[in-house]
Amino acid sequence: MDAESLEAASRPTMITSPDNTQLKLIRGLARKKERDKSGLFAAEGEDLVEAARLAGWEPEVLLRSGEDVEPDLLDRVSALGSGSRVIGVYRQRFSQPGGERSVYLHGAGDPGNVGTVIRCAHALADGPVVLGPGCADPFSPKAVRAAMGSTFARPPAKAGFEELAGTTIALHAGAENSLAEEMAGAEPPVALCLGGEREGLPPGVLEAATARARIPVRDDGPESLNVAMAATIGLYELARRMAPDA
Amino acid sequence: MDAESLEAASRPTMITSPDNTQLKLIRGLARKKERDKSGLFAAEGEDLVEAARLAGWEPEVLLRSGEDVEPDLLDRVSALGSGSRVIGVYRQRFSQPGGERSVYLHGAGDPGNVGTVIRCAHALADGPVVLGPGCADPFSPKAVRAAMGSTFARPPAKAGFEELAGTTIALHAGAENSLAEEMAGAEPPVALCLGGEREGLPPGVLEAATARARIPVRDDGPESLNVAMAATIGLYELARRMAPDA
Repeated sequence: MDAESLEAASRPTMITSPDNTQLKLIRGLARKKERDKSGLFAAEGEDLVEAARLAGWEPEVLLRSGEDVEPDLLDRVSALGSGSRVIGVYRQRFSQPGGERSVYLHGAGDPGNVGTVIRCAHALADGPVVLGPGCADPFSPKAVRAAMGSTFARPPAKAGFEELAGTTIALHAGAENSLAEEMAGAEPPVALCLGGEREGLPPGVLEAATARARIPVRDDGPESLNVAMAATIGLYELARRMAPDA
Repeated sequence: MDAESLEAASRPTMITSPDNTQLKLIRGLARKKERDKSGLFAAEGEDLVEAARLAGWEPEVLLRSGEDVEPDLLDRVSALGSGSRVIGVYRQRFSQPGGERSVYLHGAGDPGNVGTVIRCAHALADGPVVLGPGCADPFSPKAVRAAMGSTFARPPAKAGFEELAGTTIALHAGAENSLAEEMAGAEPPVALCLGGEREGLPPGVLEAATARARIPVRDDGPESLNVAMAATIGLYELARRMAPDA
């Protein structure tokens, strides 16, 4: 055997059938039911797979286009339809609520928003995003993509409002005081609480929170900010006050 | 004729053919080429159509599911696949750059980000979002949806960096000073300048800007924020300093 044949022989066989078990698994993980059943999720693209590696996550399956699988077949199992060159399958992990600064989401049903908040908390907070009832699955393809790798660096937590420790500040468009005013006297740890786009926080959470605060927007502005923007502003304000040198 | 027959006779005919011209027009507007050619765009859903109405925009076409068109046919021309109950077609409009506080985007290719920044500027700034070279079309279905109606209230502007007036602050992860530091002495009007997710701002814009500033993120945080989050934080900081009572 010459060197080239030797290399070819030691290389794993390229997947050429759409009925391959690993491809079927990835296709299935686009559905919540399959993710729940298997406890797995898929991450598409080199950036996400690299983020997983840097955060020390071992893939259960890793398929590279043109190396492990025919490019066309990998394209066809992509949930994002973006022609990913690599797809990794990982085991879902959740953190515990905690940290001096964190975010609690309640009824945030849009996966893109959930992912963006995970990204934002990774940048500005020391605690994980806590997902309460009615939130989108943080391991859905859209949420994982929006989080841009922060899912691996800072996995979200699953918990109810009553499990939050310390000061809870409910962001609420109808609140009397601004975020800056309410945060001036807030004792850490602080959890910012945000509701879904339309419904906002349920009355029980609004009442039980230590304080309620609004983000000042222009009178001629929109009625509300989306939950990802509101969380971004809240975390920035929190970081500015609690860790001005960070 | 009894009252019911009279009402039915005065009602416009329900569209029952997928080859209807108006349905074809809406389907075409999912493509940039058709939007450019016609100067039109589509907005899907009651919230957006209501936002257009409130901002005084007359639709060129307005199709309501079950009233003007068979529900199934309207579903099939939806670019967002969300089963919209109404789709409106409007003529594209652009604003002129201006205002005391505005955002300039350069190479922001993601339509969702462009739409989110339009929303955010509507909430926190008095000037329009200025779209420089390489930005996603603000009238694409995804951008219009992400802007949640702010496209109508505050249409974006199209202009190059050199057309911006006053102080230009380039948001740049590698900048020495923080946003808060650079903004302390900034003379209005101020335009925040942001580049695309990967490339950032081109060197020419970075150099030509009045100042460069970074948004402080945690050392163990992600390498960058997405452009919509960065713009949100920038506009919040700007509003906080320049219009603290807004």
